[in-house]
Amino acid sequence: MTQLTRRHLLAGAGAATVAPLAAPMLAEAAAPPIGKQAPGFYRYKVGSFEVTVVTDGANVNPLRDNYVANAPKEEVNAAITAEYLPADKASQSYTPIVVNTGTKLVAIDTGLGLGLYAQSKGQVGQYHTNLAAAGIDAKAVDVVIISHFHGDHINGLLGPDNKLAFANAEVMVPSVEWKYWMDEGNMSRAPEALKGGFNNVRRVFGALGDKVTQYEAGKELVPGITSVATYGHTPGHVSHLVASGSDRVMVQADVSAGMAILFVRNPGWHFGSDMDRPMAEQTRRKFHDMVVAEKMLVQGFHFRFPGVGYIEKAGNGYRVVPAPWNPTI
Amino acid sequence: MTQLTRRHLLAGAGAATVAPLAAPMLAEAAAPPIGKQAPGFYRYKVGSFEVTVVTDGANVNPLRDNYVANAPKEEVNAAITAEYLPADKASQSYTPIVVNTGTKLVAIDTGLGLGLYAQSKGQVGQYHTNLAAAGIDAKAVDVVIISHFHGDHINGLLGPDNKLAFANAEVMVPSVEWKYWMDEGNMSRAPEALKGGFNNVRRVFGALGDKVTQYEAGKELVPGITSVATYGHTPGHVSHLVASGSDRVMVQADVSAGMAILFVRNPGWHFGSDMDRPMAEQTRRKFHDMVVAEKMLVQGFHFRFPGVGYIEKAGNGYRVVPAPWNPTI
Repeated sequence: MTQLTRRHLLAGAGAATVAPLAAPMLAEAAAPPIGKQAPGFYRYKVGSFEVTVVTDGANVNPLRDNYVANAPKEEVNAAITAEYLPADKASQSYTPIVVNTGTKLVAIDTGLGLGLYAQSKGQVGQYHTNLAAAGIDAKAVDVVIISHFHGDHINGLLGPDNKLAFANAEVMVPSVEWKYWMDEGNMSRAPEALKGGFNNVRRVFGALGDKVTQYEAGKELVPGITSVATYGHTPGHVSHLVASGSDRVMVQADVSAGMAILFVRNPGWHFGSDMDRPMAEQTRRKFHDMVVAEKMLVQGFHFRFPGVGYIEKAGNGYRVVPAPWNPTI
Repeated sequence: MTQLTRRHLLAGAGAATVAPLAAPMLAEAAAPPIGKQAPGFYRYKVGSFEVTVVTDGANVNPLRDNYVANAPKEEVNAAITAEYLPADKASQSYTPIVVNTGTKLVAIDTGLGLGLYAQSKGQVGQYHTNLAAAGIDAKAVDVVIISHFHGDHINGLLGPDNKLAFANAEVMVPSVEWKYWMDEGNMSRAPEALKGGFNNVRRVFGALGDKVTQYEAGKELVPGITSVATYGHTPGHVSHLVASGSDRVMVQADVSAGMAILFVRNPGWHFGSDMDRPMAEQTRRKFHDMVVAEKMLVQGFHFRFPGVGYIEKAGNGYRVVPAPWNPTI
């Protein structure tokens, strides 16, 4: 007969809070708590390539009423609590990666930038600290590939001196994205809420003297890294297929954005920040069906750190199954 | 219209391996790969307590025919590949924790021991290295609580000098477990395969001069940490409920052992190393039903690092949903 019963467990829990066993004769104290998380990086191989996941952090903000544009807040909260996360909060993670292909050290996206570190009390803006903790010198990065022009992907291009934080890198940007955001007509016609985004794009790339290489979707950008058009979240939003030998990982950027798990589980939900919502949904469904069919490893910028896993069909949508953490490499 | 099609993706993947875009004029090389994983620890709070997960590593061994005693190898392999793990291999993780309750610094279980580090090429035997990386001085540990007497839980009690690696700690062991393994009659009657286990228990505790505190299941061992009888895997196997304020985590040790995910998904499967298999199954089902009903956070010694998550019903068994990684604490 096993001895486990709920009564025992609850009795135990009760005892823990109400009646400590031993009343110490003298005040006792353990070693002080450490209060510091492990460095936010994780490493894995794709064929001969070395991928380093480098998180920028995660934040928790009040859940806006229109966070999901086409679902009532009660349903959104039900989905949030089903993921064991607090209701009425949007919990978002930000996780760029760096790929060493052997011939190029390539950063894909960059994070929210240093400016937000203090403002967020260290919750986000950790990218460059974690990059250094991972043993990667930003000056050794050969190429920075940008997926799209939202601030959480481009702001980390700039260091505290407002210069390129990757001093020796070529910066590659999707041409469709560049044309859209740099167009003065698009900016003047944009709704007020989007003006800040246009201004931020000008701020960041202006600091670089607009010195970027524009790339087309569907092209190999460096040997082993191919861009894939996944338009909708923004007009020129792309993902990146990283392939070495028979191994590969699909780096999905913001195919599911924001609190990504909600849109993986409910691909028909429209994220408030998806710019073309029907196209974003269509891309999301097509993308997920493809990675499910191919059992393809996926790296998600907004998945929880380390953000690498597999997608499975589940209910009316999909589910992320995190890849098993490998304590060695 | 979205541009994403499978044809594009596969074309992209093909191009990546067959036709690199640019043929560099000179031999190029990126910065050298780092080849080193992030330190294997993770930290979270349970009420005012600070929990540090400290992995001993993970290993991959050939899958024995009787790894699951009551299921054919084909079915076991199907379950393994469904978890995106390689067929014909047993992939096992080993993850003890340390709890700082404010009054006591408490290690729960210890890992496979230093002896295996070299032998496993660093795959396992990482516990004391990761403990130091986590900023925890083994000499500051006040109490080591042992769940049961298998080598992967007790061997890390000893340092390289064959003395207690936690020099100032009280070592607490389940009394039922102590009585079973220390009984000469049990040892003489044990099948040959189990003799090594009996000898190892004598080796480890003999090195400590048998200086341990025996504890009963169902008792609070230090304020906030209560033992829970979960017999079956071994005769005296216990789990530990860690509770602070209204927060709690159930530290399940080997309720699901070995390649734990298999036995979570298929609770009726009997792990070869479960000593009383029907009792282990009964405990597993009861335990899982309880943590599902309570939506209780579970820390699993053999779950993949960081080993903390929730259990949900799925199919004919259960599923582990990893808790979201928090990049800060």
